[in-house]
Amino acid sequence: MKIQTVEMELRKNDKFLKIAEGLKPRLIQKVIYPKDIVKVVRDKTVIHGWKVNKADSIDNLREYACGRGDKFILDFGAHEVGYLTMKIRPVGSPPDAPLRLKLIFGEMPCEVKEPFSEYNGWISSSWLQEEIINIDILPQVLSLPRRYSFRYLKAEVIDTSPKYKVSFDEIYCKTVTSADLSAVKELPSMIDKELIEIDRVSIKTLQDCMQEVFEDGPKRDRRLWIGDLRLQAIANYKTFKNYDLVKRCLYLFAGITRQDGQISSCLFIEPEVTADNTFLYDYSLLFVDCLYSYYKATGDMETLKDLWESAYRQIEIALERLDENNIERDDNEWWAFIDWHEDLNKQTPAQAVLIYCMKRALKLSEELDFKEKDFLKEKVNQVSAAAITYLWDKEKGFFVSGKTKQISWASQIWMVLAEVLTKEENEALMERLFEKQPKLKLTTPYAYHHLVDALILTGKKDFAIEQIKAYWGEMIKDGADTFWELYNPEDKNYSPYGSNLINSYCHAWSCTPTYFIRNYFMQENCILKSNLVK
Amino acid sequence: MKIQTVEMELRKNDKFLKIAEGLKPRLIQKVIYPKDIVKVVRDKTVIHGWKVNKADSIDNLREYACGRGDKFILDFGAHEVGYLTMKIRPVGSPPDAPLRLKLIFGEMPCEVKEPFSEYNGWISSSWLQEEIINIDILPQVLSLPRRYSFRYLKAEVIDTSPKYKVSFDEIYCKTVTSADLSAVKELPSMIDKELIEIDRVSIKTLQDCMQEVFEDGPKRDRRLWIGDLRLQAIANYKTFKNYDLVKRCLYLFAGITRQDGQISSCLFIEPEVTADNTFLYDYSLLFVDCLYSYYKATGDMETLKDLWESAYRQIEIALERLDENNIERDDNEWWAFIDWHEDLNKQTPAQAVLIYCMKRALKLSEELDFKEKDFLKEKVNQVSAAAITYLWDKEKGFFVSGKTKQISWASQIWMVLAEVLTKEENEALMERLFEKQPKLKLTTPYAYHHLVDALILTGKKDFAIEQIKAYWGEMIKDGADTFWELYNPEDKNYSPYGSNLINSYCHAWSCTPTYFIRNYFMQENCILKSNLVK
Repeated sequence: MKIQTVEMELRKNDKFLKIAEGLKPRLIQKVIYPKDIVKVVRDKTVIHGWKVNKADSIDNLREYACGRGDKFILDFGAHEVGYLTMKIRPVGSPPDAPLRLKLIFGEMPCEVKEPFSEYNGWISSSWLQEEIINIDILPQVLSLPRRYSFRYLKAEVIDTSPKYKVSFDEIYCKTVTSADLSAVKELPSMIDKELIEIDRVSIKTLQDCMQEVFEDGPKRDRRLWIGDLRLQAIANYKTFKNYDLVKRCLYLFAGITRQDGQISSCLFIEPEVTADNTFLYDYSLLFVDCLYSYYKATGDMETLKDLWESAYRQIEIALERLDENNIERDDNEWWAFIDWHEDLNKQTPAQAVLIYCMKRALKLSEELDFKEKDFLKEKVNQVSAAAITYLWDKEKGFFVSGKTKQISWASQIWMVLAEVLTKEENEALMERLFEKQPKLKLTTPYAYHHLVDALILTGKKDFAIEQIKAYWGEMIKDGADTFWELYNPEDKNYSPYGSNLINSYCHAWSCTPTYFIRNYFMQENCILKSNLVK
Repeated sequence: MKIQTVEMELRKNDKFLKIAEGLKPRLIQKVIYPKDIVKVVRDKTVIHGWKVNKADSIDNLREYACGRGDKFILDFGAHEVGYLTMKIRPVGSPPDAPLRLKLIFGEMPCEVKEPFSEYNGWISSSWLQEEIINIDILPQVLSLPRRYSFRYLKAEVIDTSPKYKVSFDEIYCKTVTSADLSAVKELPSMIDKELIEIDRVSIKTLQDCMQEVFEDGPKRDRRLWIGDLRLQAIANYKTFKNYDLVKRCLYLFAGITRQDGQISSCLFIEPEVTADNTFLYDYSLLFVDCLYSYYKATGDMETLKDLWESAYRQIEIALERLDENNIERDDNEWWAFIDWHEDLNKQTPAQAVLIYCMKRALKLSEELDFKEKDFLKEKVNQVSAAAITYLWDKEKGFFVSGKTKQISWASQIWMVLAEVLTKEENEALMERLFEKQPKLKLTTPYAYHHLVDALILTGKKDFAIEQIKAYWGEMIKDGADTFWELYNPEDKNYSPYGSNLINSYCHAWSCTPTYFIRNYFMQENCILKSNLVK
């Protein structure tokens, strides 16, 4: 039962943490009532094999008297994040024993039907949203103290007593978010309906993830990860425009780092701000891009100046990983993220992320005449040249990664985004990618974001729209109210954790279609073409 | 799922309820720490087959780092009633998933070893003291809002995450009671050690049941029952002397009755005082005895005058049940309590309870010249005469009950207490009872109380002491820290509910040995004889 304590020295910047604390948002609350009493039934034609059918009008709920073993499932009509209240009334004799109640909150139908006891994945089962509640005194207005992320609520009376049952006079969710929906502009009506719907679901995804920080997922992990923050931020600039929340998160990351200044991949906010001991090569580097896009969106020079040193430090640390040829040292450990894929080699995409981020830093330093600009310019050239020399397989026309010279989609996409090749070569590479269809594909919306981004960068806007429809649009057809953490159109039961039940079905890194739509597809020709594609 | 609402008209006396509210006690709190980390192992030689062995020093608890599936059992050293606090500290990486914790509180070792999921008894499983708790933020001082009744606490970590475990820096119970131990006089040292121990356990039982009312059992049902109150009160007069708590309970019972004035067998106190729809013939009547003994202990004339009408009303209602021969109408329903015994016929013991209570009422009315005295005198004579005529089997020398003319211990004991026969006949009846040993014996300490009472009444004090030692003393040998709701020395696994797990192991009606010892056995000759018996 003994465990070794993981010691990690952290460096705090009290000024930064104080600024972040001052930017803590007031959450917007809204009371949401369930829409229907439903049944979830087996149906192999739908995702995960569970279909939701209306069972009864919600108005009849208060007539239900529930005793031992009675249960019902409520559909709140959409994905919600918040706090549950139940007004519970005893029926029959005065309650002569406690009420024992089981509540299961599900973002997806599978969560309220498949027994959690069968979950056997490698991440903690405690993420499964289940409560067993004992109530001594009835009637009772039960307000649960924990926040849940759900559309479906399953309530099961484990026991009352032979002398009484219970009815539920009212059940509601007090939702919370720091995203103000009134700040979001409506899309022009000529945009095609599918994109409007994709935009709406993107925004709802982002909204439900915007809490006291940008969370990765309100069900799991409810934490501030750089990889998610970066994508949430650019979607937020085009929608809610809550610049302060981005600023707060940037100051938090810079406010607590490893002793050498490396920014952690994620932060814990409660009970006090602290850095996780997970350090991912690409995530730390992408702090530079977060700061870059924040500055581009706001022109907030003060923040840029405050945080420049922290951002630049990520590049310095990253460069230490390069070998004598200016190539990333490869590693079998989980040293960079890029995508959830067991077989994905990270060397080449990581090299691309380094170049990508150095180029962002270079732009900032040139624009603002920072002293680091010359060094950055030199390094960008060296590391890019090395990528061509050692990672580019001219014959195959693809970047290769690792000892096995793996050809993955991720390597090509990130190298395109890093603009290592010429514009024309980049375009040709993207075409070749779709033509040759290398086996090692993408599994997460995070990776698909970069695919779409690379398509847009190489002038393939129409194709980008097609990809968005084929991926995020397909998710909606599969029942997404909010976009999912994981979605592999070729394996819709995919989970890197060992079970669908633990996947997050409202996940920050999936929210970027609204960014693409609002940033790139609102010019008239795009809108028209998109309609044609449809 | 629909249930019929049981409609019952209640009559409230606001004056009485206000007086009761004004007498609500302030609870005395005390912090109790666990004494040992223990193992509970199979041992067929001990009650229920579970033996407790020390496993580790409690000082080592904080060194335990518990992850998925780890568990430990703590022994608090004695039965306690109160609120649990746990100071929980994460060990390892920062907690990246909630902690899911299962806690089981056991009055007896079987509760922390036998799976509650196997409980299949007829009363509610929600009495089994189990909590599943999800904790999002660590470290955490977890103070559970519910009150528990336990000696053993089993804690099991259902899950943390692969990255962290938890340690418990401090676990304690804040006990509550309205009984002030400093009011209890020490027994003279010449009393034999076994009686001193029985007295101590009696007092602890009473103490743990004394809360905002006299509860029947702090684990189950946590309610104010007349049958328990009556015995608690007389034990309390000899120990804690909390007269106000008795007074409060008397006013509560009289403050909310059925429309016809019948006092319910038990009251619910929260969320507001209300009467249960369980009406037991003997329990309603015994309110008279509660008032009688309260008046005898306190001389509180005001309360007696206030409540006399309510008490007398129970006799009026009870008399309505008599047939034209002044004999109780028998019934197959659960109309009177007397004892937990499926086969016990209630007719004759109920008749005896009626006579017993009428005699108490008669004494009060004679002493205080109440107008009902003449009627009561006449009725006592009529109903007693009827008992001799119709229920006494002269040939067998026993009272018989019901159509089958059942000869039970309960019938004889209650008829002795009702003093229907002469003193000499009573003595002979008690001797015959022990000699002939009718099959239908006693199962609860409640019934054993009346056996001892009957022995004392018939001058058999030594034998009464023997019985106390053989019953309550045996319970202590079987591991009782507090006396149990149910104990059948001939079937130690007896439960009327279908499982040992649901029995109450600190139960009010078992606390009366201290009453007997302090009321009857403190004269020198008794003490000496008791030593001789030993």
